[in-house]
Amino acid sequence: MSSEHKVCFEPYNKEINVKDGTNLIRAAMDAGVHINASCGGEGVCGKCRIHIEEGEVEGGLSERVSQEDIDKGVRLACKANVTGDITVRIPSESIVDESALLKAPPRKTARIQEADLDELKEKGLFLPPIEKFYLELPLPDTQDHLPDVTRLVLHLQIQYEEHRLQLNLDTIRKLPDILREEDFCVTVTLERAVRKKSKTRITNIQPGNTTGRNFSIAIDIGTTTVYGQILDNLTGEVMAQYGVFNGQVSYGEDVISRLVFAEKPGGLDTLHKAVIESINKILTKLVKTAEVACDEISSITLAGNTTMTQLLLKVNPRYIRRAPYVPAATLYPPVRAADLGMNVADHVSALVFPQISSYVGGDIVAGVMGSGMYRTEKLTLFIDIGTNAEIVVGNKDWMACAACSAGPALEGGGIEFGMRAQKGAIEDCSINPVNLEPMNLTIGNVRPKGICGSGLITIAATMFELGIINNQGKFERELDTKRIRDREGIWEFVLAWADETQIGRDITLNEIDIENMIRAKGAIYSGCQTLLDEVGLGMSDIEQILLAGGFGSYIDLEKAMTIGLLPEMDPEKVIYIGNSSLMGAKMSSLTNQIRRDVGDVTVMMTNFELSETPSYMDHYIAALFLPHTDVNLFPKLKARMDENSRLRAEADDNE
Amino acid sequence: MSSEHKVCFEPYNKEINVKDGTNLIRAAMDAGVHINASCGGEGVCGKCRIHIEEGEVEGGLSERVSQEDIDKGVRLACKANVTGDITVRIPSESIVDESALLKAPPRKTARIQEADLDELKEKGLFLPPIEKFYLELPLPDTQDHLPDVTRLVLHLQIQYEEHRLQLNLDTIRKLPDILREEDFCVTVTLERAVRKKSKTRITNIQPGNTTGRNFSIAIDIGTTTVYGQILDNLTGEVMAQYGVFNGQVSYGEDVISRLVFAEKPGGLDTLHKAVIESINKILTKLVKTAEVACDEISSITLAGNTTMTQLLLKVNPRYIRRAPYVPAATLYPPVRAADLGMNVADHVSALVFPQISSYVGGDIVAGVMGSGMYRTEKLTLFIDIGTNAEIVVGNKDWMACAACSAGPALEGGGIEFGMRAQKGAIEDCSINPVNLEPMNLTIGNVRPKGICGSGLITIAATMFELGIINNQGKFERELDTKRIRDREGIWEFVLAWADETQIGRDITLNEIDIENMIRAKGAIYSGCQTLLDEVGLGMSDIEQILLAGGFGSYIDLEKAMTIGLLPEMDPEKVIYIGNSSLMGAKMSSLTNQIRRDVGDVTVMMTNFELSETPSYMDHYIAALFLPHTDVNLFPKLKARMDENSRLRAEADDNE
Repeated sequence: MSSEHKVCFEPYNKEINVKDGTNLIRAAMDAGVHINASCGGEGVCGKCRIHIEEGEVEGGLSERVSQEDIDKGVRLACKANVTGDITVRIPSESIVDESALLKAPPRKTARIQEADLDELKEKGLFLPPIEKFYLELPLPDTQDHLPDVTRLVLHLQIQYEEHRLQLNLDTIRKLPDILREEDFCVTVTLERAVRKKSKTRITNIQPGNTTGRNFSIAIDIGTTTVYGQILDNLTGEVMAQYGVFNGQVSYGEDVISRLVFAEKPGGLDTLHKAVIESINKILTKLVKTAEVACDEISSITLAGNTTMTQLLLKVNPRYIRRAPYVPAATLYPPVRAADLGMNVADHVSALVFPQISSYVGGDIVAGVMGSGMYRTEKLTLFIDIGTNAEIVVGNKDWMACAACSAGPALEGGGIEFGMRAQKGAIEDCSINPVNLEPMNLTIGNVRPKGICGSGLITIAATMFELGIINNQGKFERELDTKRIRDREGIWEFVLAWADETQIGRDITLNEIDIENMIRAKGAIYSGCQTLLDEVGLGMSDIEQILLAGGFGSYIDLEKAMTIGLLPEMDPEKVIYIGNSSLMGAKMSSLTNQIRRDVGDVTVMMTNFELSETPSYMDHYIAALFLPHTDVNLFPKLKARMDENSRLRAEADDNE
Repeated sequence: MSSEHKVCFEPYNKEINVKDGTNLIRAAMDAGVHINASCGGEGVCGKCRIHIEEGEVEGGLSERVSQEDIDKGVRLACKANVTGDITVRIPSESIVDESALLKAPPRKTARIQEADLDELKEKGLFLPPIEKFYLELPLPDTQDHLPDVTRLVLHLQIQYEEHRLQLNLDTIRKLPDILREEDFCVTVTLERAVRKKSKTRITNIQPGNTTGRNFSIAIDIGTTTVYGQILDNLTGEVMAQYGVFNGQVSYGEDVISRLVFAEKPGGLDTLHKAVIESINKILTKLVKTAEVACDEISSITLAGNTTMTQLLLKVNPRYIRRAPYVPAATLYPPVRAADLGMNVADHVSALVFPQISSYVGGDIVAGVMGSGMYRTEKLTLFIDIGTNAEIVVGNKDWMACAACSAGPALEGGGIEFGMRAQKGAIEDCSINPVNLEPMNLTIGNVRPKGICGSGLITIAATMFELGIINNQGKFERELDTKRIRDREGIWEFVLAWADETQIGRDITLNEIDIENMIRAKGAIYSGCQTLLDEVGLGMSDIEQILLAGGFGSYIDLEKAMTIGLLPEMDPEKVIYIGNSSLMGAKMSSLTNQIRRDVGDVTVMMTNFELSETPSYMDHYIAALFLPHTDVNLFPKLKARMDENSRLRAEADDNE
């Protein structure tokens, strides 16, 4: 039942296609239609009454709606789901002056890019570094005393033109008995070298023909969460996926507290073991779900930030957090996964994505590689938004990168009612420009508990466009609504009244929250500007944006441009690549080209320490406004705001 | 006191220079002068009376010599040592017809070749694979955030032009702290790749300047004994040397019994651990003697036969002793010595000499490499004599090799009174051609206990030349001496009477012993012939012989040629290289060229399985005579024997 239905909103005559089962408030939000609704969708406030003129909806009933009204087609939008084509009339109390409303463009989230295997296959790049070959070797006899290894290598040359092969002692140890298990019929696992000129390794020998079973693991080691996928090397298919909290969370929530813990006696070992345990949990789940035997796994590719990588590899990360912030290494050699403590067969090697610097790590490199940024001619801006935001600008010919400390605001941290993007978080919002009543959309359509990052951006942008806050993020004190108030000297806007929430308190957004958000977006924007500046380019030169990280999948792009988090550009050119670290690890498991190219890419990427780049502070200070000191950087917004001013002036004149 | 003295033997007027302290019987033997003496040198038989005409000797007194005789200068030669220039008159009872005697050339042992470091140094080949470099790195600062590894590698490039470097995770783990221990002043240990195109490995990092301390270990893993040397990589000097019994001896004396034991449950592991324990004993002793810290050892090079190598590396040797006798591998990759259980630092790699086949192993390859055979243009015959004799013929352009089962005769096995070359073994012998009285020389100049290999060869050759045995090794029954007798149907020659021995029994050599010896020498000689035959050459083409193994250092070369063990050639061209396995391991530790070349040499060496080479059996049967069916292969011997016959005929005529 993934069919779509047409919803027409009257009196605006606005049509939108939505998926079967879509909540009607969400449909309205996506259509850019405002309905008063601050309770987030549990029918508590009862404000979102609408009238179904044609068709039927599922639900939408409530004791707050009389039987008489029900019979007339009245429903609560927040409790109604679309199950067929309908026409909905917005009641007069929700109606906004149409001309004003239409200036706000409809909600636009980033196009989601899946790892594009078909493209790889077309280009002949779908060549997993691990391949299996079946051999029926001639038996040794009195005329042929070739040693076992020589026999194997010779026939790999003859039958498959595989040259420059090497095997380690473990493989040699297995060989004599396995060769004789099925009369010298064996399957050989080859692992291509990371370096082009290096040798191909024979990593495993199995009796009989097992070429049909060849699997890889891709792992993203996030500071908070570890995700894994099991891949079929023959098809590229993701057979299963699983995530767990990074076991290191018990020893500190963020990177810095992990670094501090690692310096305690035994701390490094504890953190190393904790993440290995998390990985092992994932491995257990993945092989079980995918119905794969543990020894059918041929390789593990991992990506994580610099600290996560050094903790994974048990390389003392002490100097990462001390000036001048030096990581141990950029490239790490492949290591035996079992030596790190992973529950896989001895022959499995673990390959870890290289680092650029202490704060631009393998997760970012994985994103650059996996997204194909390193192969495009388009001038690309890659942003992984988090407490530390990492930025890469460039294309296949050059790249510059930097990390900036954005602070946790965009993840809901340092915001009074901020929260992670979990159930009950206000993730989207529309405000009636006339009476300033909000329409809150929460994750899970439940009563609100707080505000998550994407909600924060949308609310701030909406308030800014409606003139509720000025370009410094301060409330217009004179506006006629009880929602704007001074609480103990701090001005705030009430998004939901206590009785509409899950927490029994008014959920508000205050000026300090907005200031924190402005600092965060300012740090990121000015980071991008600084990088471009250093290479003699400007924001307007950017041809596409790649957004990575947990944040970003549901962000309203126009709103993000409105607050000056992203440079202004066609939203079509913004691509959400999600967990870029996991995607990179996956793509690297499936195409050896990435593993070969990544060394060159790390050499090509110029890292800027923003704190030591003189222009950064100027850019940062200029970016501490909505959207920016220089509003000419945001011409579309400027035009919209000029138009809004004109409309507002007209309205005032009409009054 | 290593001065030399001149000894003149009358009435032959034969002079010889001997070292101070040399036993007078040995001096006579080396001069080719016969003195009746069957007791081996304890003055028991009292037959070796001689008369000191000029000068003085030390000792030589006995209750068997009267004071009157002593005053006249009479001494027992076996108890007298040379301490100054002397003239010695042989008493009439020992005198042999001079003309006959002179036909037997003086004793000639092989020139001993020491590993020739000077030659390597001259040729610029003294380049140990392990080198150390001292670096004073610039400190990281706000303008220089290079990762630690990058900094190190960059400055190795800049300061020492070292390119293509790699390091493993263990080294990376150490780096951050060690760099900062002495303000980024460090010593880096580099290990050259075995393959020319492969990368140089950074194996260790130490704080400060430790370039003066750089040591290697060379190990020979013999079936019976394990020997080790500790080498100074800067000078090539052997700082200490030590040997122990191979701990595997408890589980079987020879290769075959080890192979059988390895198939028992846990057998392979037991044997593996036993040899590692032996190696560790040697390591402990070596580092203590040389006053080297364990972590100053940079590499270990080992050589052993194929079975010893597989047991060392814990590679199942099951198929070595089963037709068609297939070893697991020829080349083994370098492995971490600590992973094998050796008591050395983690960064030390163990390199094992490659094998050619199941019965031509790394000990032989080490000999070919270490002796320089693989670099000479001379057509060379390399023989390692033992129960299994390994033979290599060829030069720098081609080589053929084979192993033949000689049986233990030449090591004293299967000989009624045979023994190893230990104290009390008759190692040399002269026989009075007239009365057939022997002059026995024992190791340690003590009463005889038995006969060792070199003694066996000398006795058989002497008997053959004197016509005591015929070319089939059968005694001339008619000879007039009680020393030749039939004991329970087996003909034998009494070398020492019961009361002259340590064992209280007559020590004899019988026809079965001689037959066993003939089989042994026949197997070796025909092995050489077969190899040459297969490449279209003959014995007369051989330009030099390299003798390896414990056997051979004291072998009388002319005698070995007389029995047809060695092809006839100028004894000057026979070189004794001793423990060629240890020498090869040592040379390989000191010159990387050997490690690089050895792969090509193993490919170049053609292995012949003699049992499957049709001509071998013919050659073998022809070699079961003294010296050979075709006496024309031994022209010098033929001339000598013809002359002896003529002399004997003349003597008969004169009677």
